[in-house]
Amino acid sequence: MSHDDCIFCKITKGEIPSAKVYEDEKVYAFLDLSQVTKGHTLVIPKEHAKNIYEISSESAGELFSRVPKIANAIKETYGAIGMNVLNNNEAPADQSVFHIHLHLIPRYGKGDGYSSNWTTHGDNYSQEDLQKIAGEISSSIK
Amino acid sequence: MSHDDCIFCKITKGEIPSAKVYEDEKVYAFLDLSQVTKGHTLVIPKEHAKNIYEISSESAGELFSRVPKIANAIKETYGAIGMNVLNNNEAPADQSVFHIHLHLIPRYGKGDGYSSNWTTHGDNYSQEDLQKIAGEISSSIK
Ligand SMILES: [Zn+2]
Ligand SMILES: [Zn+2]
Repeated sequence: MSHDDCIFCKITKGEIPSAKVYEDEKVYAFLDLSQVTKGHTLVIPKEHAKNIYEISSESAGELFSRVPKIANAIKETYGAIGMNVLNNNEAPADQSVFHIHLHLIPRYGKGDGYSSNWTTHGDNYSQEDLQKIAGEISSSIK
Repeated sequence: MSHDDCIFCKITKGEIPSAKVYEDEKVYAFLDLSQVTKGHTLVIPKEHAKNIYEISSESAGELFSRVPKIANAIKETYGAIGMNVLNNNEAPADQSVFHIHLHLIPRYGKGDGYSSNWTTHGDNYSQEDLQKIAGEISSSIK
């Protein structure tokens, strides 16, 4: 399953060049051209899926099972002191290529190219509110 | 394998209460108390591992294989228009609890509580530079 107009499918097939970090039967990893930090790598399944909503459970498991060894290699190669693994789904969450991908962003300290902003809303929710939300989500899991 | 002083191990064993979203033999999911956005959920392996560097390939695969169905449930319950899945490793990358966890942060639009800053450094690297980096990482994968 691939999409003819998908640039990441073309990369896995070698139709578009990439700086390849890793490849096996199911998974392909290559450097992100933007290099937010040095060694910034994308890990993708060879089987096309748009994002986390559409990928199969099996393919998701295969994808993430390769991340520990790739993350360790990046860490060891450049002495990263931390790593953010990110998967953005749909445009409002900053997905720009619609073939699911995991960003591995090694960290070297403040000002290295990546940071995130979290606003805590814990004070807005009582324990009862949280139990209600958890129950609503739980009952929607298929 | 669990760590006696690990709050997430205690949550999976029911020794500390949580707003549980999902549970099976290998994986546990519960609401993050900070609720960066409504429905913000943590997905963790029951088997203790500090972070992406220390989790087994097998456990990593099991963990992520549950994310599609949980992500779809969150999306459907609250009408999220996107989702960021984040895994932060080591303190410089904002890890604060040292039992690996995936943040599922449903997105509802700008100002909803989460955003990230990416600085592109693509202009700093030639194609030769990228091939060299990819080769260095690739040769370190075990
Ligand atoms: Zn594709
Ligand atoms: Zn633990």
